[in-house]
Amino acid sequence: MNDQELRSAQVSTAVRTSPAESASRPAAEAASRPPVVGMIGAGQLARMTAAAAIGLGIRFRVLAAAPDDSAAQVCADTVLGDYRSTDDLLAFAAGCDAVTFDHEHVPQPQLAALEQAGFAVRPSAAALRMTQDKLAMRARLTELGVPCPRFEPVATAGDVLAFADQTGWPVVLKAVSGGYDGRGVWVCRSSAEVAEVLSHGLRLLVEEFVPFERELAVLVARSPSGHGAAYPVVETVQRDGICHEVLAPAPGLADYLAEDAIMLGLRLARDLDVIGLLAVELFQTGYGLLVNELAMRPHNSGHWTIEGARTSQFEQHLRAVLNWPLGAPTATAPCVAMANVLGGDDPDLHGKLNHVMAADPALKVQLYGKPVRPGRKVGHVTALGSDLAAALERARRAARYLATGTEEA
Amino acid sequence: MNDQELRSAQVSTAVRTSPAESASRPAAEAASRPPVVGMIGAGQLARMTAAAAIGLGIRFRVLAAAPDDSAAQVCADTVLGDYRSTDDLLAFAAGCDAVTFDHEHVPQPQLAALEQAGFAVRPSAAALRMTQDKLAMRARLTELGVPCPRFEPVATAGDVLAFADQTGWPVVLKAVSGGYDGRGVWVCRSSAEVAEVLSHGLRLLVEEFVPFERELAVLVARSPSGHGAAYPVVETVQRDGICHEVLAPAPGLADYLAEDAIMLGLRLARDLDVIGLLAVELFQTGYGLLVNELAMRPHNSGHWTIEGARTSQFEQHLRAVLNWPLGAPTATAPCVAMANVLGGDDPDLHGKLNHVMAADPALKVQLYGKPVRPGRKVGHVTALGSDLAAALERARRAARYLATGTEEA
Repeated sequence: MNDQELRSAQVSTAVRTSPAESASRPAAEAASRPPVVGMIGAGQLARMTAAAAIGLGIRFRVLAAAPDDSAAQVCADTVLGDYRSTDDLLAFAAGCDAVTFDHEHVPQPQLAALEQAGFAVRPSAAALRMTQDKLAMRARLTELGVPCPRFEPVATAGDVLAFADQTGWPVVLKAVSGGYDGRGVWVCRSSAEVAEVLSHGLRLLVEEFVPFERELAVLVARSPSGHGAAYPVVETVQRDGICHEVLAPAPGLADYLAEDAIMLGLRLARDLDVIGLLAVELFQTGYGLLVNELAMRPHNSGHWTIEGARTSQFEQHLRAVLNWPLGAPTATAPCVAMANVLGGDDPDLHGKLNHVMAADPALKVQLYGKPVRPGRKVGHVTALGSDLAAALERARRAARYLATGTEEA
Repeated sequence: MNDQELRSAQVSTAVRTSPAESASRPAAEAASRPPVVGMIGAGQLARMTAAAAIGLGIRFRVLAAAPDDSAAQVCADTVLGDYRSTDDLLAFAAGCDAVTFDHEHVPQPQLAALEQAGFAVRPSAAALRMTQDKLAMRARLTELGVPCPRFEPVATAGDVLAFADQTGWPVVLKAVSGGYDGRGVWVCRSSAEVAEVLSHGLRLLVEEFVPFERELAVLVARSPSGHGAAYPVVETVQRDGICHEVLAPAPGLADYLAEDAIMLGLRLARDLDVIGLLAVELFQTGYGLLVNELAMRPHNSGHWTIEGARTSQFEQHLRAVLNWPLGAPTATAPCVAMANVLGGDDPDLHGKLNHVMAADPALKVQLYGKPVRPGRKVGHVTALGSDLAAALERARRAARYLATGTEEA
């Protein structure tokens, strides 16, 4: 691999057709009507996917809990329903060429019901389980020889203390399922803190606390016919467990580590039989890369691709779940910086948006249409350029102003 | 102006607030709700504007004739109605912060009714008249000293013959109103051909036939507060009166002509009090630039800006009609080629799209969701790169394949 290929690769991974593959509608009918993709969940990921579907001539349908959900505000084909109801899911999926997800919360029995009814569920229930059950994910990655933090299942406080005896403090307790955006993850520095977390009665695992140098993410796509594509590896900056900033490509990343990350992403997509996007969150450490988390959907670490890559992650996900040829994941600028906009005290984003647009006419803004609440992700901004520090400063300044109405750090 | 500024300028034009300006809703209410833009017409221009509205957090509403109109397929807030009905227009406009257009067919009395009711009609009825009445447009441009083809109103065949005696044959007859995409324009080479056109009983004007070297277009935006922005000047290639290809920037265009075109566009936007986009179609001749046509909406000559400019024409139009600061109109690649996809015999575009995507993963495609009919614009493709000939060949090849299912020229 030369340097160019290494940093954004398009490769053919092993062909493995999912069982649902043969269940899509007859080819004759497909010829005369546009493809239909249904996305379960109507948050900002579905909203941005809706924008990508427009140009591709795809009829895009979302399953929303409420008519004012982020994606429901903009999507012509919004179905109201409950993602935990098999009836709602089956009614929603009718007529869809592919059913996909903006979150990982649809329970396994309901996913199985969709598959048994013959719908093309992408990714499959089996693949999604790896994002729903962190113990199953850790066990499978270990089986695949993928480097991860040390971990153990937790039944009692004694299990945690025994684990800490081996790894030292602090340790990380994680909910086996239901964790999202840092909720469900607790860094514990004492047996008292462990007892507090255990008191909630959740199913937990314990992981070693990794003294990482920084966090990286690799985003790949895979289609049912085995075509794979990888975006350039990015650095992610988390704060309080929430993705705060993304730098693309990850500055100063050694070529061999970028190649490791990309090969890992593509290999995991194949071995876990992922259809659509797979985001792999990584710890960069002095002894290589460790896998932190997986997501099988568009991901916050890939929002920069809307303007920063030739094919956005949202377009790529649609192409993959429809088994269309994947698009070029190459960057459109030397450096891209993305900063999330977190809600502040002022409910009016648009007033502040005017200031930001006047100050930086080349900045790109995505607002999610969500009511502002302190700390909630309500949008993101992206700056492109040839100098990463300058792009990052532009993105930071705009995100800060949209959140707080001030340019002070 | 240095070369950079000349080819894509952001300038402040004279401030001139339209009368409708003061009619938008109270600021207090605006703080707690998203801005609403209503677009009259639901063709592909409204469809692509809908995609741009999503990221800006704008509630976008379209007035559609039928539920399966191009934009109605993708827009959550579609109102069915007749753009010639004042009642339908007033009902549609209720709650909109700005009302704008995907075509120029709303009659003047209905536009006046909207303005009198206090809606922010952008562009205004007075400005739009210049796109609805070619005689009024020619008279106004002449008054402004803008170079145009020689023209005369036509009452009788004798008027045309007298005009041809001065300019020579052929002459160009144009419908004073209702012309679109070459329909309503006739190149006449004899008095018999003139008689044939006159027999249809349309109101006509006659223009000299301009032996142009090529056709150019300049696209500018202007906001109510007088902020202006100009995109790089492009070359347009028409075939049978329909835009076929666009090359951005216009290859080999002398700097002084690029500057002439941009200054002309910005000046016309100011002098005609345009709010939103103004597209100026130009003839390049041995003796300078002549204005051919005007449009005050997103324009086919600007489709390349979706990926090829930092701010797409659709985003720019929304920003302008809301009186938001305009976005950077700078190009994102050295060369961009756009080719329209015209319908062929095969109604299935998506089958052919798969071939095109596999052949060229970096190509960008926009499909309009319109039933395929021979010769109808059903989509466009855009190729970006550093070599214009290569980009043009990629766009041509893909457009040809989507239209015909073959790669033969």
